[in-house]
Amino acid sequence: MTTIDFQHPSLKDRPLDVISLGRAGVDLYAREADTDMKDVTGFNKFVGGSPANISAAIARQGGRPGLISGVSNDVLGQFVCHYLEGFGVDLRGVKVDDSGSRTSLAICELKASGGSVVFYRNQPADLTLTPDDIDRDYIASAKVLLVTGTALSGSPSREAAFHAMTLAKEAGTIVALDLDYRAYSWKSEAESAIYYRQAASMSNILIGNREEFDVLEALIAPNNRDDDATAKRFMTGETQIILLKAGELGSKVYTRDGERFEQGIFPVTVKKPFGSGDSYAGTTLLALIRGKSLREAVKMGSAAAAINVSRDTCTEAMPTSDELAEFIAERC
Amino acid sequence: MTTIDFQHPSLKDRPLDVISLGRAGVDLYAREADTDMKDVTGFNKFVGGSPANISAAIARQGGRPGLISGVSNDVLGQFVCHYLEGFGVDLRGVKVDDSGSRTSLAICELKASGGSVVFYRNQPADLTLTPDDIDRDYIASAKVLLVTGTALSGSPSREAAFHAMTLAKEAGTIVALDLDYRAYSWKSEAESAIYYRQAASMSNILIGNREEFDVLEALIAPNNRDDDATAKRFMTGETQIILLKAGELGSKVYTRDGERFEQGIFPVTVKKPFGSGDSYAGTTLLALIRGKSLREAVKMGSAAAAINVSRDTCTEAMPTSDELAEFIAERC
Amino acid sequence: MTTIDFQHPSLKDRPLDVISLGRAGVDLYAREADTDMKDVTGFNKFVGGSPANISAAIARQGGRPGLISGVSNDVLGQFVCHYLEGFGVDLRGVKVDDSGSRTSLAICELKASGGSVVFYRNQPADLTLTPDDIDRDYIASAKVLLVTGTALSGSPSREAAFHAMTLAKEAGTIVALDLDYRAYSWKSEAESAIYYRQAASMSNILIGNREEFDVLEALIAPNNRDDDATAKRFMTGETQIILLKAGELGSKVYTRDGERFEQGIFPVTVKKPFGSGDSYAGTTLLALIRGKSLREAVKMGSAAAAINVSRDTCTEAMPTSDELAEFIAERC
Amino acid sequence: MTTIDFQHPSLKDRPLDVISLGRAGVDLYAREADTDMKDVTGFNKFVGGSPANISAAIARQGGRPGLISGVSNDVLGQFVCHYLEGFGVDLRGVKVDDSGSRTSLAICELKASGGSVVFYRNQPADLTLTPDDIDRDYIASAKVLLVTGTALSGSPSREAAFHAMTLAKEAGTIVALDLDYRAYSWKSEAESAIYYRQAASMSNILIGNREEFDVLEALIAPNNRDDDATAKRFMTGETQIILLKAGELGSKVYTRDGERFEQGIFPVTVKKPFGSGDSYAGTTLLALIRGKSLREAVKMGSAAAAINVSRDTCTEAMPTSDELAEFIAERC
Repeated sequence: MTTIDFQHPSLKDRPLDVISLGRAGVDLYAREADTDMKDVTGFNKFVGGSPANISAAIARQGGRPGLISGVSNDVLGQFVCHYLEGFGVDLRGVKVDDSGSRTSLAICELKASGGSVVFYRNQPADLTLTPDDIDRDYIASAKVLLVTGTALSGSPSREAAFHAMTLAKEAGTIVALDLDYRAYSWKSEAESAIYYRQAASMSNILIGNREEFDVLEALIAPNNRDDDATAKRFMTGETQIILLKAGELGSKVYTRDGERFEQGIFPVTVKKPFGSGDSYAGTTLLALIRGKSLREAVKMGSAAAAINVSRDTCTEAMPTSDELAEFIAERC
Repeated sequence: MTTIDFQHPSLKDRPLDVISLGRAGVDLYAREADTDMKDVTGFNKFVGGSPANISAAIARQGGRPGLISGVSNDVLGQFVCHYLEGFGVDLRGVKVDDSGSRTSLAICELKASGGSVVFYRNQPADLTLTPDDIDRDYIASAKVLLVTGTALSGSPSREAAFHAMTLAKEAGTIVALDLDYRAYSWKSEAESAIYYRQAASMSNILIGNREEFDVLEALIAPNNRDDDATAKRFMTGETQIILLKAGELGSKVYTRDGERFEQGIFPVTVKKPFGSGDSYAGTTLLALIRGKSLREAVKMGSAAAAINVSRDTCTEAMPTSDELAEFIAERC
Repeated sequence: MTTIDFQHPSLKDRPLDVISLGRAGVDLYAREADTDMKDVTGFNKFVGGSPANISAAIARQGGRPGLISGVSNDVLGQFVCHYLEGFGVDLRGVKVDDSGSRTSLAICELKASGGSVVFYRNQPADLTLTPDDIDRDYIASAKVLLVTGTALSGSPSREAAFHAMTLAKEAGTIVALDLDYRAYSWKSEAESAIYYRQAASMSNILIGNREEFDVLEALIAPNNRDDDATAKRFMTGETQIILLKAGELGSKVYTRDGERFEQGIFPVTVKKPFGSGDSYAGTTLLALIRGKSLREAVKMGSAAAAINVSRDTCTEAMPTSDELAEFIAERC
Repeated sequence: MTTIDFQHPSLKDRPLDVISLGRAGVDLYAREADTDMKDVTGFNKFVGGSPANISAAIARQGGRPGLISGVSNDVLGQFVCHYLEGFGVDLRGVKVDDSGSRTSLAICELKASGGSVVFYRNQPADLTLTPDDIDRDYIASAKVLLVTGTALSGSPSREAAFHAMTLAKEAGTIVALDLDYRAYSWKSEAESAIYYRQAASMSNILIGNREEFDVLEALIAPNNRDDDATAKRFMTGETQIILLKAGELGSKVYTRDGERFEQGIFPVTVKKPFGSGDSYAGTTLLALIRGKSLREAVKMGSAAAAINVSRDTCTEAMPTSDELAEFIAERC
């Protein structure tokens, strides 16, 4: 058990389920699969970024997602907004920036082995968010605030994210942190470690994989690889639930009162190597909001992840509630 | 007549015709024409940037182009190099940068009216060129050094470009400047005006359109719109030839000794609004190198521009020498 | 009572009493008092900065201070080190920086009313501290780590300070935070508020005046001016003691278990308006280390502050233990 | 002879003799001579910076100097302005900056051997000058514009200086450049070399010592140490007179038409190692304005330099016209 009460009366009438905070941008995927970039003739255009994907996952299941992010004031920023609106994502928290920043962009090879990704994130629009851009009432209108780690990688977005977490605590909004570590975004591993730890201790729910928790431990326990020790170390401050993702091995789940269980993956034929984490996070949170137990919620998250990677695209590949229920029913 | 001698004995055995200095990057054109960005489903991938286009124009006519630029050390940088090598461009002057910069990128709508272009040029690889990256012997191996104005827009590339022009003068390499003004690249119009004027006075040949010469005159003759007065003002320092492009009206040509003539455009059905200027510049310079008179060379430049815009693509649309000769023969 | 145990066996044999972390630099005071800067003919040279002053206060009473700071690699940096060594301050934590930074410098008029101070702190050496500059064993060699707020005002010093606080907690070193707010050091009040709050919750002892606590409350309780409400708000996380300084009115003292008392000032003829806060902080901490009760320690701090401002200089004006005992004996 | 006509009718009625452009700031000299910084007890306060010194030299001889510079909006900036006004320097070109910059500051040991100087020039006020800060009419109100090299060391001051030189040329104001090279101000020697050369070719009169001309030649003739070859190389563009200072050996003077002569130093007992160059430059220019021949003017400049270094201070040590005449009369 934890002290997090997703069914708390004060949350009941909030119009939004989960507000995600962080990167929303354009993903360009190579038109030809298993082809080197130099031979690729063009790209298909999608919206990407963890908060965008998570919002899509929630929307596809009939949930009500909100987004705090930044896009540039140009046709690509307009595309991102238009696309997410189409999914039903509430965009009142999205800043349209005119300061010379650019909408986050990823250009990706499409290879079974992963392929190269070139990120265009020099002065990205999402990192221009300031504390002044965070609206107290907007934060208070959601049951959960989900911060993704990239938002912490640079100022003033870092301060905006910390401020949002403080406002969430004041408003009784549950805070989740998805570490979402991308080394290229940070000046040093030490900097990541310091601000991740601060954000972790302010979060009720902590989500990350082994490599991401290694970053949190870089300065204080650099040689630890023991998941249980990690979970114990970060079950502090506000943290009540830790979801430690282990790829092929599923995920380990820890709660403040000492509960610990594992959730395996659902075997599927993998069509692409991304999207699963966001599908997992969004679905698990929504399930908890909808009153599922932690075990049920994590199982649904895993199922949603499996469905996502078995399909070609990313945001469009998020399952509906019916697809999710059917998938689980067939396999359990 | 001018004092520029393209047939000077010291130039005769130089292995390269024109080294272009400046931006080389990736251009992504909307797959669907006349469609708003938000509805575009994907992009076709090309190489772009004035120096790249000019090099392609020269290569297609059997000339020997070289390039001084920068690309990032990733699969997109590799693509740009691979593509230009395929055209036969000498890339010994291209820096592969690992400092966090990114290969210049333009994402373009494809509309008859022009369409929006979003440039990703926050910390672009081409602007990381330093004076140390400029090789004296490489500059001395070409007949012409063509600097494009974007290279002057930021440090340390600005200093690299000035240094290259100094080395060119020492080596007897003819210097041309294509103003290629992009307001978003500069901190202020005043800054552009100051460094453009310095570069102009160091150049034997000056190429630009009315709007670009307005920038040169911004601080010293802000109300002038008279082309002849402009040409007189900038026929100073090393400058011997000024090519003032006027779009639909063709171009006006001025020489140091007072010669002045106009070259109209060749009417064609325009398929796209870009590429003509680079086709014009590259072809004119190559024709001069090959011994054509200034009048003949400019006519060939105009013809090449017309052929380019009558085709779908950009670098691939540059005409061969035979196509060019045939096109002119049919029309004159 | 609080859970802070200054007499804990693990602290007993530590060689240092208090390591101060933050600004150490040069203070130049006008040679002529009550004179406008334009008419001042020269300056007397001192060492300044809260951490330096606090170290001096501790050293004068026979305590063993240490310092974590940065100075530039030049004759002024050498002066600061030489001067503090003369006081017996342990300087193993002082970085001599060669990156173009400069030793912090303040140039001060000397006026009864306060006078103007011009700070030279564009790229100051103390803000170049990085997490890598913080030595775990050094932190563990002291009973108390005192962080001053200026260290939080910019990166990478901000990360270094947070890292030092984490290492202190791991090592059982007591952590104190002196807010020491200087608006000019920060990009925005919001930024100050966010990082001050994080540092406050990591500190066992929190020291500041009303204006400084206003900064902590800027985003979350902007209209509060009630000291008791403030103390209650920040008696959270690791915080056990809050010393809220009120200038002429003395200070209010709060503990985690709800104790609250006030300590008035000792009336003296004030010769200069600075140095009192550092004298107070250093003396109070040393008294606690030496086994005094909180009431006794704060009284000693107030007495030391009074002695300091009744004298002409700053670091030299810190009282010895005997002077302090005599001063109190005469007045109580 | 040269084409520079200091007696040109268009200059006759101009209210100012020489406008100097560049650094004006505070110089703090150790109170104790021949003492290490750590043992110095304080400083005497002066105004410094080449343009300030040159202005003082001109004012002391009854000339009418003007200044284009920047100071910070604080009591030190006010001091600099107040002090120079006292000398009769026209300050209409001085910007009082409020952006966080600081008035340039030098803190100096006073040793026969030179002594250490610590410059506080991180974000100095003088480098905040922009082209917009340069007033066309102000430039046109002076007979000579003297640019000092530090103004070229960073943007936007670099662009402001180039713009001022362009306006001077348009207005018929004679342009002089004092190289005044300080390595610490520049990002690289290559950068210095490039912009110094551009500024040199825009200047009618070029003043510098051997080490400074080495910087101009760093990229194009790195091994040259031959003064005559140097003078020949830079007698280009607008340059008509080159004054190559050689310290103890006096100076070499070159003109565009091939004249060349040397002027030795006047032997005196040197009391301090600075101020001579500014005294020389200001006096020589004023003498030329007043109709002296180049030989006479340079002799007066050398005499003024000798007088300056034979005295204790700097700006106050500049000789009056009478002192100068007497000094020369006694020695020639």
